[in-house]
Amino acid sequence: MKKGLFIVFEGGEGSGKSTMIDMIYNWLLEEGRDCIKTREPGGIEISEKIREVILDTKNTSMDGRTEALLYAAARRQHLVEKVIPALDLGKIVLCDRFLDSSLAYQGYARGLGIDEVYKINKFAIGDYMPNISILFDIEPELGLERINKNSNREVNRLDLEKLDFHYKVREGYEIVYNQNKDRMVKIDASLPIEQVFENVKSVINGLIN
Amino acid sequence: MKKGLFIVFEGGEGSGKSTMIDMIYNWLLEEGRDCIKTREPGGIEISEKIREVILDTKNTSMDGRTEALLYAAARRQHLVEKVIPALDLGKIVLCDRFLDSSLAYQGYARGLGIDEVYKINKFAIGDYMPNISILFDIEPELGLERINKNSNREVNRLDLEKLDFHYKVREGYEIVYNQNKDRMVKIDASLPIEQVFENVKSVINGLIN
Repeated sequence: MKKGLFIVFEGGEGSGKSTMIDMIYNWLLEEGRDCIKTREPGGIEISEKIREVILDTKNTSMDGRTEALLYAAARRQHLVEKVIPALDLGKIVLCDRFLDSSLAYQGYARGLGIDEVYKINKFAIGDYMPNISILFDIEPELGLERINKNSNREVNRLDLEKLDFHYKVREGYEIVYNQNKDRMVKIDASLPIEQVFENVKSVINGLIN
Repeated sequence: MKKGLFIVFEGGEGSGKSTMIDMIYNWLLEEGRDCIKTREPGGIEISEKIREVILDTKNTSMDGRTEALLYAAARRQHLVEKVIPALDLGKIVLCDRFLDSSLAYQGYARGLGIDEVYKINKFAIGDYMPNISILFDIEPELGLERINKNSNREVNRLDLEKLDFHYKVREGYEIVYNQNKDRMVKIDASLPIEQVFENVKSVINGLIN
């Protein structure tokens, strides 16, 4: 039975993970690897509809736990419809954000509890844990500075949160990383982009070979 | 601080729990009790939208775990917006279906696992477990016979499931009941309606006094 590789890119705002996922995707294609890149809700109809409920601006009274359950539901359907079929075909799946985003943002920064949020996500993920979760670590001020310089990128709701929140997210990622070094690797995202690229390539080469 | 009573009505199709909730509601009002009756999604905008996603007939490929997470999300929001505020005002809240429906239908009859479904529902419910969950137990064939006789009630999708499924639901409820006798009570729903009514009244009187 063929079995692919499930690689997740994680990190705070402006950590450069989305740029890096594109670079890695192109590199893998050039290397002749069968590869897809995705992010939730990833064009999956049910997940898109769930995301609409989450983002509906009228829903200002949405409870934090309701939101966490909805994210887990959208994650499940995206996994079942898009990620698992690709893995079953032996593809490399590059995914922008997954479990650890929920743990850092909702579990820690929003205060729902990392263990609590892990439980509902474990229900959503089942046996399909990523082979590796690559954490792009950067000082929040540097990350937000990058975003502001980049006129091609829209500033979203999270970018506008107080700087304090971004520090909490980084702290959350740090805790999750320290508890899960067996399935996570941390990359210094403040280095020059070509150096970050080389470091990510060597992590992925280590998995492939 | 005032604190109400949270009473849940559970059971399979045709168990008569919806008729009973109306009778109990009217009786409590006559007794001068401050009381509301509700059922998920209960007119809560976010929960109604989640229910729309679940019931959308185009979504025939919805995964069982996605569905269970969506039900838990709708449950959380209904709890936060409607049940908790009423309990905080000291009201008696009568709720048609809650946690144990998910355990019996999704956890057991659909095969997701009672413990697994409990975990995500515990996340949704937090510290607001019902004071009592009243299980209306009836032979599935008798329950479905009742439904077919009652022309005022639309036959829904679950009614049409194979009889086998309804037996599984009853078995699921039985397992859940045996594991949770501290917070559940079982009522023989095949008895004449006036006798069932008396039995439920005495359970509730036991809670009030």
